[in-house]
Amino acid sequence: MKSIKNNETAVFALGGLGEIGKNTYGVQFQDEIILIDAGIKFPEDDLLGIDYVIPDYTYLERNVDKIKGLFITHGHEDHIGGIPYLLRKINIPIYGGKLALGLLRNKLEEHGLLRTTKMIAIDEDDLIKFRKTSVSFFRTTHSIPDAFGVVVKTPSGNIVHTGDFKFDFTPVGEPANLTKMAKIGSEGVLCLLSDSTNAEVPNFTMSERKVGESLNDIFRKVEGRIIFATFASNIHRLQQVIQAAELFGRKIAVFGRSMDNAITIGRDLGYIDAPKELFVDAQSLNKLPANEVMILCTGSQGEPMAALSRIANGTHRQVQIHPGDTVIFSSSPIPGNTLSVNKTINALFRAGAEVIHGKLNNIHTSGHGSQEEQKLMLRLIKPKFFMPIHGEYRMQKMHSNLAVDCDIPLENTFIMGNGDVLALTQNSARLAGRIPSGDVYIDGSGIGDIGNVVLRDRRILSEDGLVIVVATVDMKRNRVVSGPDIISRGFVYMRESGTMIHEAQQMLSKQMQRKLAASPADIGALKSEIIDVLGPYLFDKTKRKPMVLPVIMEV
Amino acid sequence: MKSIKNNETAVFALGGLGEIGKNTYGVQFQDEIILIDAGIKFPEDDLLGIDYVIPDYTYLERNVDKIKGLFITHGHEDHIGGIPYLLRKINIPIYGGKLALGLLRNKLEEHGLLRTTKMIAIDEDDLIKFRKTSVSFFRTTHSIPDAFGVVVKTPSGNIVHTGDFKFDFTPVGEPANLTKMAKIGSEGVLCLLSDSTNAEVPNFTMSERKVGESLNDIFRKVEGRIIFATFASNIHRLQQVIQAAELFGRKIAVFGRSMDNAITIGRDLGYIDAPKELFVDAQSLNKLPANEVMILCTGSQGEPMAALSRIANGTHRQVQIHPGDTVIFSSSPIPGNTLSVNKTINALFRAGAEVIHGKLNNIHTSGHGSQEEQKLMLRLIKPKFFMPIHGEYRMQKMHSNLAVDCDIPLENTFIMGNGDVLALTQNSARLAGRIPSGDVYIDGSGIGDIGNVVLRDRRILSEDGLVIVVATVDMKRNRVVSGPDIISRGFVYMRESGTMIHEAQQMLSKQMQRKLAASPADIGALKSEIIDVLGPYLFDKTKRKPMVLPVIMEV
Repeated sequence: MKSIKNNETAVFALGGLGEIGKNTYGVQFQDEIILIDAGIKFPEDDLLGIDYVIPDYTYLERNVDKIKGLFITHGHEDHIGGIPYLLRKINIPIYGGKLALGLLRNKLEEHGLLRTTKMIAIDEDDLIKFRKTSVSFFRTTHSIPDAFGVVVKTPSGNIVHTGDFKFDFTPVGEPANLTKMAKIGSEGVLCLLSDSTNAEVPNFTMSERKVGESLNDIFRKVEGRIIFATFASNIHRLQQVIQAAELFGRKIAVFGRSMDNAITIGRDLGYIDAPKELFVDAQSLNKLPANEVMILCTGSQGEPMAALSRIANGTHRQVQIHPGDTVIFSSSPIPGNTLSVNKTINALFRAGAEVIHGKLNNIHTSGHGSQEEQKLMLRLIKPKFFMPIHGEYRMQKMHSNLAVDCDIPLENTFIMGNGDVLALTQNSARLAGRIPSGDVYIDGSGIGDIGNVVLRDRRILSEDGLVIVVATVDMKRNRVVSGPDIISRGFVYMRESGTMIHEAQQMLSKQMQRKLAASPADIGALKSEIIDVLGPYLFDKTKRKPMVLPVIMEV
Repeated sequence: MKSIKNNETAVFALGGLGEIGKNTYGVQFQDEIILIDAGIKFPEDDLLGIDYVIPDYTYLERNVDKIKGLFITHGHEDHIGGIPYLLRKINIPIYGGKLALGLLRNKLEEHGLLRTTKMIAIDEDDLIKFRKTSVSFFRTTHSIPDAFGVVVKTPSGNIVHTGDFKFDFTPVGEPANLTKMAKIGSEGVLCLLSDSTNAEVPNFTMSERKVGESLNDIFRKVEGRIIFATFASNIHRLQQVIQAAELFGRKIAVFGRSMDNAITIGRDLGYIDAPKELFVDAQSLNKLPANEVMILCTGSQGEPMAALSRIANGTHRQVQIHPGDTVIFSSSPIPGNTLSVNKTINALFRAGAEVIHGKLNNIHTSGHGSQEEQKLMLRLIKPKFFMPIHGEYRMQKMHSNLAVDCDIPLENTFIMGNGDVLALTQNSARLAGRIPSGDVYIDGSGIGDIGNVVLRDRRILSEDGLVIVVATVDMKRNRVVSGPDIISRGFVYMRESGTMIHEAQQMLSKQMQRKLAASPADIGALKSEIIDVLGPYLFDKTKRKPMVLPVIMEV
């Protein structure tokens, strides 16, 4: 970061600006870098076949000797999912709350990185000191326990990163530490990086406690079995529904690996308070009366392989829907999942279940603060400069407007993108160039090996399939000695397209012979000819544009 | 329909039950069939490359001599889009309101079907008599003018089909004819088929007039240019925004083919009242001051090729976003379009525009009635039997609950699927078997030629691409004389995977030689061997499962 002066603190993000996901932030003063979070993003539909997206870690690799540690605000995938991939490149210590580290531990074990990684559990009162900078924390409320904001003290001033937050005054776990936030604010904050996710939502986000009340109301009324689906990581929600089950005399059977995992970790770490006898296995489940049963499962986003989808489709080995079952979606669909959630709900109704979902029933609340909570954060922290983080551009923009409403001068707000560097002194802020940033795609075990060429090919193949033309050419005599044969996949149903394929073959045969006569021994020209002749012919016949792939064997 | 008795009237749907779209209904008494609507459905994401979905028309083809006519309730694609495909199979007369016929005319012209098709314009007071049945109409309100419900009079009793409807008491066009509906109800209705789209939405849908008021409020305040996007077919909305433009002294430039088309038809038929001088072309547009301009365009669903998306991305030839522009999305995203609408909104914000969207601003209202309106329809029509139509299963289910609330006995409600046949007499109703129904895919110019095999191939290709193994085999000597060569598309970036590909080639070469020795001259076995060897090898190396395609040339 050449453009940063010696008295400046640089603030940047490799991910998490102008997008939801892959949150990865950095604060640098001279030769000390504090990293905050390292998340993944789930790919949008146009990234065919891609499993996850992580940021380009080039800048961190180049400056590994400066990195003091990675500080995790909480244990959600979009904040910790990138860590295994980062650790493969650089070995750095990880600081985080005990739940976040608990979830991370499983992940690192899967990647064979557990033994080589130094993990340090932090609590709200800890202060981690480095030579020039130090890091401290403040407790927030979010849809997972152990959520923290981070304060990075630098010689230029204090940088505050909220992590994800809402202000839940009646939370299920510990409340946010308003006193500490006020103290941080009163000591002076140079720059606030604050969660913009719900910046388009007016008012105040509903309390988690309210969800508990709604669940109790439902449990009181329902007479059949209850099937309850939510995000596994929403430990507070799990605690509440477990309490409801206990209160109304229902045993709990858990389905889905991440749900199993969450319950185990939650109980081990003391976030879930539930007697062991409350849980039953799949076999005992079917021996209990319907009104003494709750099934707790994954699949609230309609994920095709999750427990609930398989239950809905009748393909789950242990659970079938009975008439009288009530399914509760304690969740709201992420935009890209609306259709798959719809499908699951319809399948459940068809199978004879009642389904409770949607906003009207107060069975779900967001983990992110709405506009009034974002303003409360601004008024408590009272920063000189403001950078909206976490969220698409439109949300950052709206959040920046809220900051202006809260008396931050417009010129002190910075709507930045990934890779942009903000250089701060005690009384100035300026955009100071860019560092490498960009999306890195993970597909199977490959990291970053899929680029635009491969994706473009997948797109063409997915739309109209492909047609392969195979021929053997005698290069000395310039003659086609075998073929051309035509093979296709994903284009047309070949058995019903005999005439078209036959006609294409004849035409190709003629044109190839002509081309070989005109440009002897030129395989490149022959391949181009095949594409030029066949593409338009097939489009004319079908109005489709399959990929045309000539394969010429030379003898 | 063998299972139907001589005194029974059959009611069925080929599309539009358990789904949104391809609405296609039939009422049959003995040798007379009345068809209502023939729509298309837009494919969900998993139908890769498919353009539209229509129903299987087999039953109609087989009974073409019985079909008296197709009656169109209104001019939306999901009610008229299938007509060209139906008319290619069978030539039947089309009855509809003048706007629906106007929109259909363009469509039939494109398909070269205009001259051979008999179109009969109907109005609310018309009665179309056949030998045993007759058809009459009642005016409803919807998000397009000229929306009608249909009454089919049969010897078994009257069948009422609502089409799409809401009860807008202060509409922009003509109000719904409550008096006539009450009269129809008082004369006795055997079965009501009613629109279920908004059966999950409580209360009453907002009036279109209210949208007009909100638009005026916005136009009063905005000082820069206004860019307004909505569904082209929402003629009432167009009328209102045109009035607002006129009132506040703005000239209108229209972009997008369907918008041009809608304005032309709307003005020609008298649904849009706007002086010619109000409209300007793209060139004059840029000469006018910002506050005297409104751009009216397509693209409210984020469609990538529509005018608004191109304006947002800076690729529109004539319109660029200027700071100070205000873009109004007078629409709500269809579930599958949420992400593309998001993208467009973000791009507009980035380009410097203000964007007004979402439910909070009252700039859009649904064309479908909510629960209270569905109950009002039930109370007016007072049917003996009830069949919820238009909508996914969950909506049909909810609508059926509403019918029970309105004193229709549960056993008199029929939640049916496409192809199910309901057989009715004056005092009985029973499910009476099924007729062929199912999805027919349109891809390019192909109708129904894409089936599950092709789609499965497209899915595999889109996820992990393909790998082609090419070799020439001397069948007499059982030797590989050229290759194996490996070609891939959409799998890995080949230039960076040299080692893996080389290793695979060597392994294949060895295994192919071995196989040829073991099973001489057996090309099938050789191909299987290639797939069996290469698939697991590539999965082991990449955790991907590309399609493996062996191509063996024999010499």
